[in-house]
This record gives sequence, C-alpha cells and structure tokens, in this order.
Amino acid sequence: MTQPSWPQGLPSNFGGLDEEFSGFDRSRIAVLPVPYDFSTTYQSGTRAGPRAMIEASRNMEVWDDELGATYRAGIHTLPEVEPTALGPEAMVERVERAVGWILEHGKIPAMFGGEHSISTGAVRAAKRTFPNLSVLQIDAHADMRDEYLDSPYCHACVMRRIRELVPAASVGIRSLSEEEAEHLEAHPAPIWSTRQFRALRGEWGGILEALTEDVFITFDVDGLDPSIMPGTGTPEPGGLDWYEAVDLMAAVAARKRIVGFDIVELAPIAGQVGSDFLCARLAYRMMGLALSSAKR
Amino acid sequence: MTQPSWPQGLPSNFGGLDEEFSGFDRSRIAVLPVPYDFSTTYQSGTRAGPRAMIEASRNMEVWDDELGATYRAGIHTLPEVEPTALGPEAMVERVERAVGWILEHGKIPAMFGGEHSISTGAVRAAKRTFPNLSVLQIDAHADMRDEYLDSPYCHACVMRRIRELVPAASVGIRSLSEEEAEHLEAHPAPIWSTRQFRALRGEWGGILEALTEDVFITFDVDGLDPSIMPGTGTPEPGGLDWYEAVDLMAAVAARKRIVGFDIVELAPIAGQVGSDFLCARLAYRMMGLALSSAKR
Amino acid sequence: MTQPSWPQGLPSNFGGLDEEFSGFDRSRIAVLPVPYDFSTTYQSGTRAGPRAMIEASRNMEVWDDELGATYRAGIHTLPEVEPTALGPEAMVERVERAVGWILEHGKIPAMFGGEHSISTGAVRAAKRTFPNLSVLQIDAHADMRDEYLDSPYCHACVMRRIRELVPAASVGIRSLSEEEAEHLEAHPAPIWSTRQFRALRGEWGGILEALTEDVFITFDVDGLDPSIMPGTGTPEPGGLDWYEAVDLMAAVAARKRIVGFDIVELAPIAGQVGSDFLCARLAYRMMGLALSSAKR
Amino acid sequence: MTQPSWPQGLPSNFGGLDEEFSGFDRSRIAVLPVPYDFSTTYQSGTRAGPRAMIEASRNMEVWDDELGATYRAGIHTLPEVEPTALGPEAMVERVERAVGWILEHGKIPAMFGGEHSISTGAVRAAKRTFPNLSVLQIDAHADMRDEYLDSPYCHACVMRRIRELVPAASVGIRSLSEEEAEHLEAHPAPIWSTRQFRALRGEWGGILEALTEDVFITFDVDGLDPSIMPGTGTPEPGGLDWYEAVDLMAAVAARKRIVGFDIVELAPIAGQVGSDFLCARLAYRMMGLALSSAKR
Amino acid sequence: MTQPSWPQGLPSNFGGLDEEFSGFDRSRIAVLPVPYDFSTTYQSGTRAGPRAMIEASRNMEVWDDELGATYRAGIHTLPEVEPTALGPEAMVERVERAVGWILEHGKIPAMFGGEHSISTGAVRAAKRTFPNLSVLQIDAHADMRDEYLDSPYCHACVMRRIRELVPAASVGIRSLSEEEAEHLEAHPAPIWSTRQFRALRGEWGGILEALTEDVFITFDVDGLDPSIMPGTGTPEPGGLDWYEAVDLMAAVAARKRIVGFDIVELAPIAGQVGSDFLCARLAYRMMGLALSSAKR
Amino acid sequence: MTQPSWPQGLPSNFGGLDEEFSGFDRSRIAVLPVPYDFSTTYQSGTRAGPRAMIEASRNMEVWDDELGATYRAGIHTLPEVEPTALGPEAMVERVERAVGWILEHGKIPAMFGGEHSISTGAVRAAKRTFPNLSVLQIDAHADMRDEYLDSPYCHACVMRRIRELVPAASVGIRSLSEEEAEHLEAHPAPIWSTRQFRALRGEWGGILEALTEDVFITFDVDGLDPSIMPGTGTPEPGGLDWYEAVDLMAAVAARKRIVGFDIVELAPIAGQVGSDFLCARLAYRMMGLALSSAKR
Repeated sequence: MTQPSWPQGLPSNFGGLDEEFSGFDRSRIAVLPVPYDFSTTYQSGTRAGPRAMIEASRNMEVWDDELGATYRAGIHTLPEVEPTALGPEAMVERVERAVGWILEHGKIPAMFGGEHSISTGAVRAAKRTFPNLSVLQIDAHADMRDEYLDSPYCHACVMRRIRELVPAASVGIRSLSEEEAEHLEAHPAPIWSTRQFRALRGEWGGILEALTEDVFITFDVDGLDPSIMPGTGTPEPGGLDWYEAVDLMAAVAARKRIVGFDIVELAPIAGQVGSDFLCARLAYRMMGLALSSAKR
Repeated sequence: MTQPSWPQGLPSNFGGLDEEFSGFDRSRIAVLPVPYDFSTTYQSGTRAGPRAMIEASRNMEVWDDELGATYRAGIHTLPEVEPTALGPEAMVERVERAVGWILEHGKIPAMFGGEHSISTGAVRAAKRTFPNLSVLQIDAHADMRDEYLDSPYCHACVMRRIRELVPAASVGIRSLSEEEAEHLEAHPAPIWSTRQFRALRGEWGGILEALTEDVFITFDVDGLDPSIMPGTGTPEPGGLDWYEAVDLMAAVAARKRIVGFDIVELAPIAGQVGSDFLCARLAYRMMGLALSSAKR
Repeated sequence: MTQPSWPQGLPSNFGGLDEEFSGFDRSRIAVLPVPYDFSTTYQSGTRAGPRAMIEASRNMEVWDDELGATYRAGIHTLPEVEPTALGPEAMVERVERAVGWILEHGKIPAMFGGEHSISTGAVRAAKRTFPNLSVLQIDAHADMRDEYLDSPYCHACVMRRIRELVPAASVGIRSLSEEEAEHLEAHPAPIWSTRQFRALRGEWGGILEALTEDVFITFDVDGLDPSIMPGTGTPEPGGLDWYEAVDLMAAVAARKRIVGFDIVELAPIAGQVGSDFLCARLAYRMMGLALSSAKR
Repeated sequence: MTQPSWPQGLPSNFGGLDEEFSGFDRSRIAVLPVPYDFSTTYQSGTRAGPRAMIEASRNMEVWDDELGATYRAGIHTLPEVEPTALGPEAMVERVERAVGWILEHGKIPAMFGGEHSISTGAVRAAKRTFPNLSVLQIDAHADMRDEYLDSPYCHACVMRRIRELVPAASVGIRSLSEEEAEHLEAHPAPIWSTRQFRALRGEWGGILEALTEDVFITFDVDGLDPSIMPGTGTPEPGGLDWYEAVDLMAAVAARKRIVGFDIVELAPIAGQVGSDFLCARLAYRMMGLALSSAKR
Repeated sequence: MTQPSWPQGLPSNFGGLDEEFSGFDRSRIAVLPVPYDFSTTYQSGTRAGPRAMIEASRNMEVWDDELGATYRAGIHTLPEVEPTALGPEAMVERVERAVGWILEHGKIPAMFGGEHSISTGAVRAAKRTFPNLSVLQIDAHADMRDEYLDSPYCHACVMRRIRELVPAASVGIRSLSEEEAEHLEAHPAPIWSTRQFRALRGEWGGILEALTEDVFITFDVDGLDPSIMPGTGTPEPGGLDWYEAVDLMAAVAARKRIVGFDIVELAPIAGQVGSDFLCARLAYRMMGLALSSAKR
Repeated sequence: MTQPSWPQGLPSNFGGLDEEFSGFDRSRIAVLPVPYDFSTTYQSGTRAGPRAMIEASRNMEVWDDELGATYRAGIHTLPEVEPTALGPEAMVERVERAVGWILEHGKIPAMFGGEHSISTGAVRAAKRTFPNLSVLQIDAHADMRDEYLDSPYCHACVMRRIRELVPAASVGIRSLSEEEAEHLEAHPAPIWSTRQFRALRGEWGGILEALTEDVFITFDVDGLDPSIMPGTGTPEPGGLDWYEAVDLMAAVAARKRIVGFDIVELAPIAGQVGSDFLCARLAYRMMGLALSSAKR
C-alpha cells in the first residue's frame, strides 16, 4: 500500500506511537488489553477500561515529566483478549496464557483490565518466569474472600488466590467483609490501610520487606481516592492520592525489579475523561519505573 | 411494630402497591427480577434493568388507560435472583428453578431481565407446566447462534436453545450474523422483520398460526425502535413502535393464553428515565393481557 | 407464603440486611428517608438522595473497618416520608412527627434527606426527648437567613431556626450571604470555616465546649470538599476531607452522646455513584459512633 | 456606555434578537420564564426549562420554514418569575399577576415552565381579559385530580382547576389515575387520547367545536412522544409526533384566536439538547400561529 | 512477530474485519475518518464522530439483512486526517487531497466526519475523477449561506460552495436562515423538505432527475429525525425516518452510480450509543448500495 | 417600559447583580466572555465555559467569605466576543481589540474562556497599557510549543508567544512535550511544577521576583487538580488544590498590582456543576484581589 500523503492523526495504540516505537520486536513493554467484566456486581463497565486508557494515552504527552522519554524503549499494544462467558476460572486461564506468551517473548507485561479477577492469571504466568515473585497490591478492598457468586476466581477472591501462590503486600485497603476480617485476624498478612500507610510518613521499609526481589504490581484503581478516580465500580472514600501512589511505586522500583503490572477496575464515566487520563498517566509512569528497575 | 402514623411514600414494589394488592398469596402475577448481565459484550448495564423498571412503575398510574385496574388481580414482587459467576448455563438453571417455583404456586411469571440468556430457563420451566407451549419473541436479533463466547447458553444463542424446545414466532428481527442467516436459510423459521411485519398491515394470522395455544412472550426491548427504547445494549435502527408492539400482543391475548412473559435487555441510561418508564408500562400492559387471556 | 428457594439478592434496606438485623423491634437505629426538595433553587435532585444512599449501602461491606460489625445492633429502614406541596413549614411539622415517633420507640434516628429544611423538624423532635440538646452542623453554608423565597423554613434558614431552639456549633462554613455575615457580626456564634478548623490542628476542645452533652448531628454533605462530594446542589470549593469529617465526629462521640443525626443535600449524579457511596459509608460510620457514644 | 466595537455574540433572549426586534414596547409577544418545580415528584428539573429553551432558541434560525419571519413582530423576553416556597397556590397567584401584567400591556403571553401547576395562574389572568376563553391542552396526563400532595393547585390538578373556570379540549391524554378515570366517567369531558386523535384522520372539527373563539394553549411537552421529547419528568409512551402537534395548532389558528400559550414540563437532559431545541422551535411556531390567528 | 495464540477481540477498523477483508489492496471501499469540528457553534463534539462510528461498527453484524455480505468486497479503514487550526478553507484542501488519493487508488471513498464543512473537499476531489458528478444531500439545513463566522468554507456554507461546482438535490431540509430563504427564492434549487418529500409518496422521479449519472451522497445526520438521531449538534424536529432515508438511497443506487459518500455531523452522546450505532449501520448500507450501483 | 411588578429572578450577569452594581459606567471590573474553542483536540466544550461560569455565579453568594463585598466595586458583564472561523491568529487579534477597549475605559478585564489561545490577545492589549507587564500562569501544561496544528497561535503555543512579549512565571506545570522539555532545557524559564511549588512551603519569594510590578494572571483551570476541576479538556493528575491557588494569588496581590486576568479551559460537564461553580468563585476571588492590589 502506498502511504497516504496527507497529515494523519496519531496511531490508535498506547501513546499514539509510530511504528518505530511501537513495533512488537523492538518494544520492551507489551500492553495487553483485557476488557473482561463478567463477574462484577454493583456498577459495571470495566470492559470499556482498556480502550479508554489507550484512547486517553493518545492525548497524553509521552514525555514523562519525572522520567522523560519512556516511549523510546518501545511500547507495543497487543490485540484485546476476548472474554469467555464460561466464568472467571476459564478467563483466568486465558489470561495466564496471554501473559505467559508476553513473558516468553521477553517483554514486560502491562495488562489493562477489566475486573480484578484477571490478575490471578497474570500472576500465575509471572510466577512461572520469576519463581521469586511477590505482589504489591494497591487496592481499597482486601479481595480475600474464599468464594464469591459461587466462584473462587471472582474479583473479590483474587488476592486470596494470589496469596496462596506468592507473598504479597497490600496498601490502601479500607474495606473488608466480616469474613475477610476474621480470616485476616486468624492469618495476618502485610496490609496497610490508607491511615496506616500515612502513619508511616514515608518510612516504607516494612512494605518493601514484605516483597521479594521480583515484584508484580496489581493496581486496582479504587485504591486511589474517589476524588481523583471516580471511574470505578465501588469507590471507597479515604484512598491514596496521586503522589502517594507513584512515590510508593518509585520506592519499590528503586529497590526491587518490577517484572510486570496490571491496572484494573477502571470503569470509565461517559463524558468525563479524568479517570481514563489518570490511568493512562499511571500506566506510563509504571512502564518507566519498570524499565528503570530492570536496569539494576 | 406499631405502624408509623405519618404520610408515607409508596412501597418499593412493582406498581408501588399496598399489601392488599401485592401480597404473595392474593396475587395472580409474580414479578421476578433477574439482574444478570455476565455475558453481554457491547454496552453493559442490564443488571440495573429490573430495579429501574420497578422504580419507574412506582411513578406510573396503575390505571391502564386501555385495560383499566389490572392491579386488582394482585402483583407480587419477588426478591431478586442472585447472579452466579459460573457462566450462563448455571444461571439458566437457577432461573428455571425460580420460574418453576412461581408456576408451581399458580402465578403468572413476569420476569424482568437482565440479559436475554435467562429466557431459556423461563421457557424450560414453562414447558414443564404447559406442555403445549410456544414462544412469541419480540426482538431485533435472531439470537440463533449455536455458541457465543464459548457458551451455547449466551444471550446470542437463546432462541436457538428455545427453538430446540418449543415452536416460536419472531417479530422485529432485523439483525443476524452470517452464520444465523445461513442456518435460517437451511432451517426456515417463522420470523418477521419490521418491514415484513408492517407489510402484513395488521393481517397477523400467520404469526398466530405459528404459535400454539399456550404462549410465553419473550420481549427483548431492542425489538422496539431505538427512538422509543434507547436504553438497550445494541440499539438497531428500524424497530417496532409502541402501538405495533402492544397491538400485536393484544391480538395474541385475544386468541391464545399468555402463560408468562419476560422483558429483557433494558440497560437504563443514567439520568434519562424514558426507557425504564416504557418498560414499566409495557410490563403492566402485558400483565393485563395475560390476565385477560387467561380468562378464556 | 412459602419462602423462595433460589439464591436471592440482598434486601432493599440500609445495608442490605436480613430480617435478623433489620427488624424494627430488634433495631437500635431507625433510618428515615425524606425525599423532599421543594425549596432548593440551583440544582435539584435531593429527592433521589435517600434512595441512592440505601441502594449504595447494599453494595457496601457492613464490616466498618474502624468500628467493626455495627449492623449487629440492628438497623431498620422505615418507609419514606411523603413530601407535602404546602411548603417547608408543613414539611417540617411532618418530619417532626416522624422523628418524634422514632424517638418514642427508643431508636436512634438516622434521617436521610432531601434538602436541609427538614432538619428543623428533626431537631424539634429531639429537643423534646433530650432537653439538653445541642447541634453539630457540618456544612458549607451558614444557613442563617431569616427568610428565603418567602418562607422562614427554607433550607437557607434552617440553622437560624435551629439556633433559636438549641445551641449549635458549625464546621466547614465558607459561604454566607451579606445579610448572614452582618447577622453573625452582631450575634457571634461558634462557627469554624475549613481554614479555621484546620488551623486548630486537631485541638477541637472549643468545638466540643460549644456543644452540650446530647448532640444531634446535622450533616449537610456540601460541608465536604466537592472533590469527594460532587453530588450536591451548591458545591463550594475548599471543604472538609473524609478523615477530617469522621475524626471530628469520632471526637464528639468520645465525649458526648450522639442522639441522632441526619445527612442532607445529597443530589445524586446520574451514572456516578461515588457521592452516594460516600454517604452510605458516612451514615454507617455515624451509626457506629452514635451507638458507641450511647454506651457511656 | 460606548458600544463595544468587536463582533459580538447574539443577545441572551428568545431568538437571540437585537433590540430592534426584542424591545418591550415594539414587541407583540412577551416571553415569561417561570422556572418553578416545587411540586413534581418523580424526576425534577423543570426549573431549568425556561433557560434551556431560550438558550436553544439563540441557535435556531428565526426564519420559520413554514411561517417565515415571525420575529419581525417583536419578541420580548421578560425577567424570570421568582419561585415562592409557600406552595403552588401562592405561585399560581404570582403567575396570574405576571401574565395579567403582560395582557394589560397588550402583548401575547408565551409562558415557559416550569411545572404544569403554573398554568392555572395564566388561564385565570387570560380569562379576565378574554371572558370567552377556552383552553386547548396538549398533554399525556389528564391532570384532573382534585388534590395531590395535600394541595389542589399541584401540577396533577391543573386541568381540574382550569375546567372549573373555562371550557377545555384535551389531546394526547393517555395516562389517568383511577380517581380521574372515575371522575371523567361521571363528568365526561372532550378528551382525545393519541389513538382517538389519530382515528380522526385529520377531521378535527370535534376538537375545534369544544373550543370557544379565544383560545389559550397549554402545552405540556409530555403530550409529545418520548422519542422526540425525552426531556420531561414522566415520559409516557405513545404520544403525538411533531407534525400532528403543529398541524393541530395550525388548524386552531386558522379558525380561532390564540390569545396566549404556555409550554411546560420541559426538564432538560444534561448534554442532550434535542428536547430543548424542539421546545424552542415549538414556541416559535406557536408565536407565529398566535400572530396569524390574531389577524383575523 | 509471532502471532499471539489466545482468542482475540475484533480488530479496531470499520466492521472489525480481519486482514482478509480489510487490507488496503483488496478493498473496494476506503473509510476516511475526519475528526474535524473547528467551526461549529452550538454543540461541539463531532470530532468524536468517526471513532464512535468505527467502534459501533465492531459490534454490528456485518451481514446486512437487506444486502447480505457487503464486507466481502473489502473495507479498508484509513488513518484519520489530522485537523488543521488554520480554518475551514485549509481543511477543505486537506480533505480534497485525501479523498483524491483514495479515488486515484480506485476505491470508493466513505468519509466519516466531523462537521459538514469537509464535504466541499470531498466533492471537489470527486468532481475531478467524475466530471459528470452531482450531489444528493440529506440534511435538515440548507447550508446555503455565503459566509459564516467570516469564512465562506464554514459548515453553514457547504452546499453553497458545492452547488457552485456541481448540480445537487437536497432532501429533508427544514431549516434556513432568512438570507438563505431569500437566496433560494431568487435562485430556486431542487430542495425537498420532509413534508414535501413525504408528499411524493415514493414517487421520487423528480429527485432522481435532479441528479446526474454519477452521484456523491453527503449525508448530514441531522436530516434524520432527532428521535432516531439525537447525537447531532442542531437537532431539528420533523426529520426523515430510517426507512425513508435508506429507501431513497436504494432508489438512487438502482438508477445511478454512487461514487462515494460522507456521513457528517454525528456528535456522539456520552453513554448512549444509539446514534453511533445507527451511523455505523447507515454507512454499511451505503457501502452496499454504492457497490451494487457500481455494478451497472 | 413599565417595570414588571412581580418578584423576579436575578439578572443574567456575573453575580446576578442589579443595575446598581453592574452598570458599565460605575463598574471597576468588566467580564468578557469569549466562547472560543476552535483549536482544541481532545475533549471539546470550552465554548460553553463563559456561560456556565456566569450561570453558576448567579447562585453564588456575592459576599466573599475572605474578602467581603467585592461586588460593590461594580462588575459589568459584556456581550460575548463572537468566534471567528479563520483560525486562532484572527481570534487573538479580535480578543486584543476587545480587551484593549476595556482597558481604554479604565476597567479591569476579567476574561472568561474558551481555550487558552485567546490569552495572547489579552496580554498584548495589557502590555500596551502596562508596559511593565508580566504574566503569572497557573497551568498543568507549559504551552511552550512553537507551532501546533499548523498555527503558532494555538492554545499549545500560548506561553511561547506570551514569553516573547513579557516575562512570565508559571506554577503547576506537570506536562510538557519532548520538544518543550528540550526548549526549556536550552532556554530556562521560571517554572514550578506542583511538586516544586509544594517544596517551597509557602516561601514564594522566587515566584514574586520573576514577576514585574504589573501582573496579568492567566489561569488555565487544568492547573488545579482534576479532583476539584474535572471539567477541563486534558485533566492532568497532581495539580494544585483550592487553597494553594488562591493563597498564591493573594500573595501576588499583596505585593504587585493585578491589572487583569483570564480563566480559561473550563469545559463544563453536563449535569455536574462543581467545576463551573469553582470557576465562578475563583473569578470572584480574583476580582477581589485585583481590586485590593490596585489600591496600593
């Protein structure tokens, strides 16, 4: 095909990047969109999350004001993973396959949800490549139920499944069911509510110690305060602010290797791009941090 | 409990009816809310449909301007059926159980969806009680796929499953996949597009002949024109108008017995109650028609 | 009626509580929905507030992460108080009757508005039961006009009326009319703007001293910052954050008895549940604090 | 004041008209905005109706494609009538005063609501000037209750009050309470549902006969079909279309004198101007018809 | 790049077509997205039109229920034309270049706007390839101003410019400025309002006679009724319905050659996909008609 | 014209002020609405900004809780500047003319945008009157591109143009293109990101030193945090809060003379007045500060 000669809009990939910086082979980062929300119960809409993040990212400067020209490492946007209607367990397996494929190709996976249930698949895949894996969870909810809506793979159970597999530290947690509270009473885990996190006043050694050398970050956007992240299904008051979240991850990047990450539970609000745009910025920052952490 | 003595708002049931006209035992109609939308793919939100219909119905006059005081036959609103995350097949079974329970108690089921996949369960239950059952489908889509998103019980397959069970006539159909078009070419079925339906100019004998004596109506609201029913996931242009839809059902009621019905695929639009309100009116009209048809 | 046997959704009351924890007789708390907004002038919609709060509360964990299983004390949701079109004075009387009824039955009233004008009725009723009553107002506006839109019982006059009845302390106030500024110049009252409240740096003795032993809290949600509470009619910049608000009330609960409260002026934003959800959490926290304060 | 010399936007009055065509003295038409909605119960927001109509009218061509340059007769936009919180009866009196003032100045009143309750005031004033007055009501609802929310002047009672005063013909009516149905059974009135109106096939003599020589039109926008008028509080399916409504009024204008009119119950939908724009066009058409009818 | 092996979502092009049916070389149709809306004045947002149409088309069955498997002819989606801020004249030139490029490659251009001003560029390019060109305009507005907002290339002038170049027939026109009415009085043109079009009762010979053999269709979506097309900047009541529009175009295709088309002025409404979806269907129908007409 | 005698709503000007406080001659402040957004690219809608601010201001108390009765100095609202479609350069010239006219009449200009490109015109005019002018920019974006969308006068270039004319200090900047980052590396300018600004802990001497005696403030609302200002086209996380912004300007007012200001890039969100209301309050505060600074 002869190339069109008129001025064209940016490509429809993460960052709106030209082939030079988004071709698969030359890219260090692989974005995996997973528009799955078949087991949420209150407000739906996370299926539109990946697309909204990518669209927003096309209108974002790809110069990160704190990390610079992250895009030069290459960011490839993969096709979406098609949802399955057979329930979250089947979807977790599909995600595991896709993330495994990314890792086999030596890329850093950046998975965009969709609901939180998909993270189990990503962590399973990462655990195979990085046996010394641990998980940093940013979230409002413990997600430690043993079963929900008849399935042990629902979004409300995702950290229960992940903690069975790898160590995990959780920050921002401020909502638990009674069952989860009792479980955590019996089986303590390294979890910090927003209040507890703020009480650390930047002394985050305890969080870092709960993590191993290789870290996968699962970022449920409801860990952030609803004021800056209204676009999520269950917006719990009292969450993290922007600088708290990115500074914590920068601290992790300075001491650990970030081997992949996901951003889940963005449920875009029609006509209000703030949440989408924040997620695009967040993803880009996390890509930069993952790259810098990988250099060590 | 002493009864509060101040003026109170209407009860939160269909029609906002007092105990006298909504108690279970004295009610001829049983409303079953099924807020399930775990297998839709484009726009989500049908889980909010049942609640929106019931809320709208509280603001509707319960005097039907064509049928009168339908409510006097009693309309009981049941608790919602809880969704399961195990996939549409499991949900179909749960719905079958619930609708069966209603029929066993001698009530006319009025099921409010939720996505269309649930209708398979309702028809299965009705078939057990009414062996001579047939189904009238109002819909924009044939819903005749053999499988969708890995499941044969997805909303896109519902009429394929139902037609395996009972005869069915379909009106308003104006969207098929190529697979469905080929299937219907090979296995013709009594289906009328909006154009074909209008070409009948009220001579609906052919439709009635495709039905048996006992009819269950499955009303996918996207059968209506998007102008009057914007609140649905896949609004196909060129649908039925209000009078076409209610007149067709009145003609059915005049010749057949309507043993139950569902209204599915209402996905309420935030801040715009028109779709919800139409569904409330539609449900109330269908209740009146079912009652009148049962008198024969 | 035979109980349905299929898995059911949560009941439509505050917290989605089973009869065991929501029956009237066994409940310490009584939620009174008052969907009244007949005298607001800018943005309307507070009539939808009570319903939105209750709906949101069904999706909230009833384990309060700071206070635990508040629901075990029992929370009964009463029918709505029907609005009257005869003006705010008539409505105030109706509310007084309803709240009085709750207090006579020994429950703690949790009134959900609706516009602020209804609080006069609640305070009048509480004053009868608790002669030593005072009021803590969280609000952006002084609400100290003597008359508004021809009525001395409008929302803009509510604290003028209440202060004629009982002592009151006000926090978050950052909007006054010139008339109110002059009145307060002439008749000083214990009022803290957000700036003044923050300047206290947690030394809240002065606020507590302005209150008597028995405190009714009237919480106009516009006292909170619009970032966390966009869903209100007149969102004034520079309000309280979540932790400031709940910590202040915890301090009150630690020293006083909270005999009842209201949450008013929530005007839900269609398609954006954050404000509703915060109010549900806020109500639940206030219930827990009221219960704990009552133990002293 | 020296006149600014840069190109300026259109003035903020109906039609965006220059002083030449909007000055009070030279105007035949007087627009009266009445942003009152203190007694509606389901969806609120009609207070924003007048402003939305005027704003939309600024973006409308003032060349009416069927009637031409109506604006040349002069259209003056008056200041808004301030709502009173003392209930609909007080508001009706205030409206009566304002419309009376317009009529005393020899203008044709074009009142923009606001809820329907205000029409009683307009008709009272018009009756004083035109003793031989009758009313044409376009509406979905009979509005024939004797009392609603404790007041006989509520929107739901407006035609009961008006019919006590003058003869009236009603078109589009398709929603009544049981009480109203019984009342109309006992006291028949010239009322046509959409079906009945359509059955006339343009033979509107009966409607015209029910009217006197001098006609005030009260146009509740829910008389139109919700497909073209979604922006109203209680959108009843099965209403009039655009051409039916304007053609009926043209027929009235051809035989009677239209001495004034109102358009009520527009509740603008945020972000969707279609309803507002239709009302602007409708108002402009009605102005043109009133002027042409006055020539006879 | 190794092909990912997991089930993937549909590609992000018109129809969600695989390379087989969307590769440039094998495609008969070329979709050109032009997200330009720098000269609209009332409601903005047409810049989002192309993307919304393409997104909606991915959820549309590519089996046209009246024309069948149109997609098999190949539909390639080009990159967006980047807007220029230098004013509509510069943009018209850019569009002319892009459409010219499509025609040089022997494809049928399907241009998705953006505001109507871009059509001048498309017609200019088509005129070069098809000297015997004429234009069928579907529109609510005459768009016959000589200048608007200082530019003769504004959307409000587009048909004035086009008529200077080629003959044109216009259908649906129901809004003109006084200047345009006078111009058309002096220079009559073949224009049918909705009323006039309906009065033809399908006898469309006059419209066809006003067209030459080679026809470019410029479809301003506000030509349709606002009930089915709320998503446009200036929704004029009384427009065409779905079947009127597609049947007229089918009649043109049966007698003329459709050499290209545009669909302009879609301004998507956040959270309400009906307008977008109709445009996707409309585009697909027009593609099928253009292909069938080209066979003659 | 005889004055109407019924109670009337507030006038439609900034603050809803009576003639006494809004007449041109007696007013110290002149509000200039510029509803221009012909070169924005992501989210449109700033054309609705001026109107939304003025409408919100009518519902704001004109008693500033920190500065008192600012309105007594007189605030006149001018007619809107009509946009031109000829590109931003032509618009800049038009704005320069309008602001120059205000300054010639000895008023303080308060310009309400519209997109940021218009500020170049305002600063040019102010520079003519105040040769010793400098500019304080509050913004998320550097706006230092040399050209954008083919024009050197686009919103993305506004500070590049302004800095060619006068010195400028910028606060809140957290988004730059790579081109801008390189330009600023080569040509350092006094710019503070939110982080850098907060690190000053109120020691703002450096900012003040970068300004001359006469200061024009250009306030792009995206300088504020998206949590309090969601209604803007490109909401960048990590912005200023309300008190930071107003306190910085108060510090400027205490040491410099504020000779005019603009508030730009408000893109109102339908159905959510928080952003509009904040801008109204912000404008009113800035008016008060400008007046107090002028007294020195």
